[in-house]
Amino acid sequence: MPERIPEDSIGIVEGAVEHFDEPLELESSERLEAFDLAFETYGTLNPERSNAVLVCHALSGDQHAAGYLSMEDRKPGWWDNMIGPGKPLDTERFYVVSINVLGSCKGSTGPSSINPATGEPYGLEFPIVTVKDWVASQIRLMDRLGISQWRAVVGGSLGGMNALQWAIDYPERVEACVAVAAAPKLSAQNIAFNEVARQAIMTDPEFHGGRYYGGEKPRRGLALARMIGHITYLSEDAMRDKFGRDLRKGQPLSYGFDVDFEVESYLRYQGRRFVDRFDANSYLYLTKVLDYFDPAADYDGDLSRAFAHSDNRFLVVAFSSDWRFSAERSREITRALYTNNLDVTFAEIESPHGHDAFLLNIRAYHDMVATFMDRLSRDAGL
Amino acid sequence: MPERIPEDSIGIVEGAVEHFDEPLELESSERLEAFDLAFETYGTLNPERSNAVLVCHALSGDQHAAGYLSMEDRKPGWWDNMIGPGKPLDTERFYVVSINVLGSCKGSTGPSSINPATGEPYGLEFPIVTVKDWVASQIRLMDRLGISQWRAVVGGSLGGMNALQWAIDYPERVEACVAVAAAPKLSAQNIAFNEVARQAIMTDPEFHGGRYYGGEKPRRGLALARMIGHITYLSEDAMRDKFGRDLRKGQPLSYGFDVDFEVESYLRYQGRRFVDRFDANSYLYLTKVLDYFDPAADYDGDLSRAFAHSDNRFLVVAFSSDWRFSAERSREITRALYTNNLDVTFAEIESPHGHDAFLLNIRAYHDMVATFMDRLSRDAGL
Repeated sequence: MPERIPEDSIGIVEGAVEHFDEPLELESSERLEAFDLAFETYGTLNPERSNAVLVCHALSGDQHAAGYLSMEDRKPGWWDNMIGPGKPLDTERFYVVSINVLGSCKGSTGPSSINPATGEPYGLEFPIVTVKDWVASQIRLMDRLGISQWRAVVGGSLGGMNALQWAIDYPERVEACVAVAAAPKLSAQNIAFNEVARQAIMTDPEFHGGRYYGGEKPRRGLALARMIGHITYLSEDAMRDKFGRDLRKGQPLSYGFDVDFEVESYLRYQGRRFVDRFDANSYLYLTKVLDYFDPAADYDGDLSRAFAHSDNRFLVVAFSSDWRFSAERSREITRALYTNNLDVTFAEIESPHGHDAFLLNIRAYHDMVATFMDRLSRDAGL
Repeated sequence: MPERIPEDSIGIVEGAVEHFDEPLELESSERLEAFDLAFETYGTLNPERSNAVLVCHALSGDQHAAGYLSMEDRKPGWWDNMIGPGKPLDTERFYVVSINVLGSCKGSTGPSSINPATGEPYGLEFPIVTVKDWVASQIRLMDRLGISQWRAVVGGSLGGMNALQWAIDYPERVEACVAVAAAPKLSAQNIAFNEVARQAIMTDPEFHGGRYYGGEKPRRGLALARMIGHITYLSEDAMRDKFGRDLRKGQPLSYGFDVDFEVESYLRYQGRRFVDRFDANSYLYLTKVLDYFDPAADYDGDLSRAFAHSDNRFLVVAFSSDWRFSAERSREITRALYTNNLDVTFAEIESPHGHDAFLLNIRAYHDMVATFMDRLSRDAGL
C-alpha cells in the first residue's frame, strides 16, 4: 500500500452504479419508472453471502464512506474511521455496501438526473421520496447483489432513520440495526431549521423553480442552508472550543461588516465549499425526507407498534451534547424497541461535539459499535 | 377611557423625538455629527424629577413599549403587560422613558436616516455603534429631560445589556438595573446565528451594498434573518406546544414543497410581516451591536472588574428554557456582581417559552420585577 494511505485504510476504492428499470411505486403514489443507485463496497462478500452490511449516509453525505478515490485524494470517505480493516465495521470480516440515496446528487437518481420523459433534468418534477422509498429501492440493489440478509444496516442521523426503516419494513432481510444520533421523527424545531434552509434556496433569484441546471446555480441560498445546518451540527460547547474562548480573530474589531469572529469565517467557508459539491434541489428533497420521517404516524403515533414485526437486534447510540437529535430522542426509539421485547443496546456517549460526534473517532462510541458487530459476526460464524 | 382600551393600559400614547447636534464620539473612533433619539414616555415626572425609569428594547423592538398609538391601533406596545398603572413598572409612581436605540429604524438616527453630509440615506456609511455608544447617546436625552438619576434602567435581551452598560459607564446616574434574559457577551453559537442572518441580507441581490432605499428592498434576506431569529426565540418545547403534537396541518402530506407543518407557515408569516416594519440595514447594525457587546473585554475578560465602579442594585432574571441566552449566562452576570459585593437579586424563572418569555406575562417574573420596583420606590420615598 502506498506511503500516504494509512495502513488501516481500505485503500483506493471505486464506485459502481446499478440501473433498475422496473418502476418503483412511491409513498406519494407517484412512481419512478426507472432509477440508478450508486454505491461503493469495501471488503469481500463471503461465499455464503452472509457477511454483508449496509451503510446509510446522512443529509449531505454520499456513498463514499471509506477509503480514497485516487492517490491524489486528500481526504478519505466520511466514515473512514469506522469502516476498514480492524475498524468497528471490520472489512476483514464484513462486506460493506455503502449506498447513495434516491434524491441525492452523487450518482443515484435525483432531481439533477435526466428525466427520461423530457430529456431534461427532473428539477422539481422529481417525485418526493421518503425513507420508506429508500428502503424499497435499496432492497432492489440487495437482490441484484444476491444478498438475502444484511448482517446489519448501519447509519448515523438520517442514515440511522434509514437503518430503522429496514427493521420496520423488511425485518426478515436484516439481522441487526445500528442507529446513531437518530430520532423517531423531527421536532418542530428541526423542521423549522429545514424550512428556513429550503426558503433560503427557493427564494434565491437563481433558483428559477428548480430549473437552474446549465446556468447560474442558487449558490447563495444553498450556502445559507449549509450554514444553518452547520450551526445545528455543533454543540454550543464545541463551537466555543473550536473558535477559542474570546472568539476574536486576534485582530481589533473591524467596526464594519467584515469577519470579526472565527465562527463567521468558518461558516462562510463551509457555505462556499458546499455549493461546489452539492445540488440545491437535492438539499430540498433530502430535508423533506427528514421532515416526513415518522414511522409511528401509521400507528396512531405509537412507535412501538411500528416495530411490532421486528425481530432484529438493535444498537442505538446517542451523544450527550447533540441538540439536533438529542439523547432523549434515541431513548424514545429504545423504549419503543424494549416494549416489543427486542434485543436492544442503548448507549449515551459523553461527547462535547454535538451532532457531528457520529462522524468522529470517539473511543467509547467506536468500542460500542465494534463490540456489537463482533457479537453479530461471532453469532453468524463469520 | 374608551371601551376597547383595557383599564390597566396607559392608554393612547404619543412619541417624541429630540435632536442632538453636539457630535457623539463613538467607540469605533468615528463620530456622529448629530443625531435624533425617538422615545415615548408613560406616567408623570414628579417635581423632584426622581421617579424616572429608562426602558431599553431588544433587537427588533422599538420605543413603543406600552399603550396604543391610536384608537385604531390593534395591538399595544411590546411591553404593555409590564408598563402601566398598577403594573410592575407602575406608571402611577414611575415616569417611564422608552427609547429607540441608535442604528434602529423607528425615529432614532440609523442607516435609513439621511446622512447630512450627502443628503442620501446613510446605508452602510452609518458608523458601527455599540451598547456603550447607546448609553452615551441616552445620557444626552436624560440631560435634556432634566433627569439626574434614573431610578432604574430596565431591559430584556439586548435591552438588558443596555441596562448593564449604564451601571458600568454611569453608575452614579442610575440607581438600579434590571437585566432580563441577557448575557455578558454572545456565545460563538449566538454570533453564528447573527452571521447567517447578516449573510442572508447581504447576499440578497436586492441589497445593493445597503443602497436599496427608494427601490426594491432585500425582502427575502430580511425575512430569512427573521425566521432564523424566531427559531432561537422559542424553546423546542414551546415550538412543540405551539404547533401541536403531531405538527401537521390536519391535511395529508403534500408530497411537494408547499407548507406541510404549522411551523412552516408560522415562520413564513413571521418573515413576511417583519420586512414591512423593519429595515434590513438596521438588522445588520443591531446584530453587530450584539456581537460586539463584551464589557469584560476591557478587563482581560474579567467581568467583575467591569462592575468595579458600580454601586447599583441589580435584578437579574433568566428563564429556564431560554437557549438563546441561557440562565447560566445570567448567573455569570450575577457572579460578577456578587464579587463586587453589590446588592443583586437573581431569579431563574421556570418557563417553557424560551427567550420570548421576557415579553410574556409570567406571574413569578412580573412579581419579581414588581417587588424590586416597589423597594426602589419605597426607598426613594415615591
